[in-house]
Amino acid sequence: MTRVGVCLAGCGFLDGAEIRESVLTLLSLSRAGAEAVCFAPDREQLHVVDHLRGEPVEGEARNVLVESARIARGEIVALDDFDLSSVDALVFPGGFGVAKNLCDFALRGAECEVLPEVQELIRAARAAELPMGFVCIAPALAAAALRGSGDSLELTIGHDAGAAEALTAMGARHHDRAANEAQVDAAHRVVSTPAYMLEAPLHEIAAGIDAMIQELLALVPRHVA
Amino acid sequence: MTRVGVCLAGCGFLDGAEIRESVLTLLSLSRAGAEAVCFAPDREQLHVVDHLRGEPVEGEARNVLVESARIARGEIVALDDFDLSSVDALVFPGGFGVAKNLCDFALRGAECEVLPEVQELIRAARAAELPMGFVCIAPALAAAALRGSGDSLELTIGHDAGAAEALTAMGARHHDRAANEAQVDAAHRVVSTPAYMLEAPLHEIAAGIDAMIQELLALVPRHVA
Repeated sequence: MTRVGVCLAGCGFLDGAEIRESVLTLLSLSRAGAEAVCFAPDREQLHVVDHLRGEPVEGEARNVLVESARIARGEIVALDDFDLSSVDALVFPGGFGVAKNLCDFALRGAECEVLPEVQELIRAARAAELPMGFVCIAPALAAAALRGSGDSLELTIGHDAGAAEALTAMGARHHDRAANEAQVDAAHRVVSTPAYMLEAPLHEIAAGIDAMIQELLALVPRHVA
Repeated sequence: MTRVGVCLAGCGFLDGAEIRESVLTLLSLSRAGAEAVCFAPDREQLHVVDHLRGEPVEGEARNVLVESARIARGEIVALDDFDLSSVDALVFPGGFGVAKNLCDFALRGAECEVLPEVQELIRAARAAELPMGFVCIAPALAAAALRGSGDSLELTIGHDAGAAEALTAMGARHHDRAANEAQVDAAHRVVSTPAYMLEAPLHEIAAGIDAMIQELLALVPRHVA
């Protein structure tokens, strides 16, 4: 059975993984007959945001792995215990958690730094020619992690000019795709979809994520559809 | 446009709304061209559970409405501000939050009490002949809220004998359905699906929730499919 690592960055689009993108990723993998292996870094979130008011909560701390476990229904491992050689592909759902907990793109844009263990993982996956999928803001993480590697990834990041400029500044190329579309960079075995970088109905975002997963699995040599 | 109220009970299956069931409910509504109106009670959760270890966290408090807002992406109203006359139907996704924050079924089984404002809402919806959908453990809430009303609802609750007995003790009738099926009680305009009361792949649970939403909307006179 094809196994796909799914990297979660918390639970909630303002301080963690975008919940709907994460669930839809798991749904598309399930429908395609692939096994999801959820993992997340065992570290404190940058901050906790009250999702009703849209404002940070002072004095509250939450752990990325523990909150991600809500989406994973407890079936999740710490990034340190995740074995890249045990999976056929990786997916990074979006949400501000990607740009706050896995790297600091939300704070520093193109000057961002990637969490060393996440950067190492993405570089190792790229070196092993493992297919990788990036949703929503996660293409910024891909570009940042592979910055200076010589790879110029072809990625989506929605219609936002600032985010697209930052991608370009990090050496990637931006493609403006609709919510229900996926971009395939066959040379680098990377696929992406804009998801909630766009304002779109949930079923169109689901279609984009499903297209992304289909394209991702088409890049897995041993996957039988 | 058909409008459907979606009652959330937090964010995480052990202490709140089951995240996947909630997202899949919103997805099926979006696909069917219905607008979701999310709401939740503005009150403290019974407790907070660490979803990595599966154990309650001492000394931490979270609010049902604030946590539900993570699934709703901030687009949610407090139950007290929810206008039943503004929607054509109601849906209750599952998760232990339903049995801990909306009623105390998780603690007291068939002897449970329902939060008065939730009981009032369900009884008012029933009196108005509004279609209602219940996912996973939520049929227990339906049975409890309408206990003694003379209505004997036809409901799913999975294969668990204890839960089925509790439903019966509250005056409902249990139907053992598969994860990808929905039970329709046309007389009471109530539909249900077992979802994560069963161990099933996510895409089968999605199929069951989609079937439930289709049946629910078929009971809305003005809905155009």
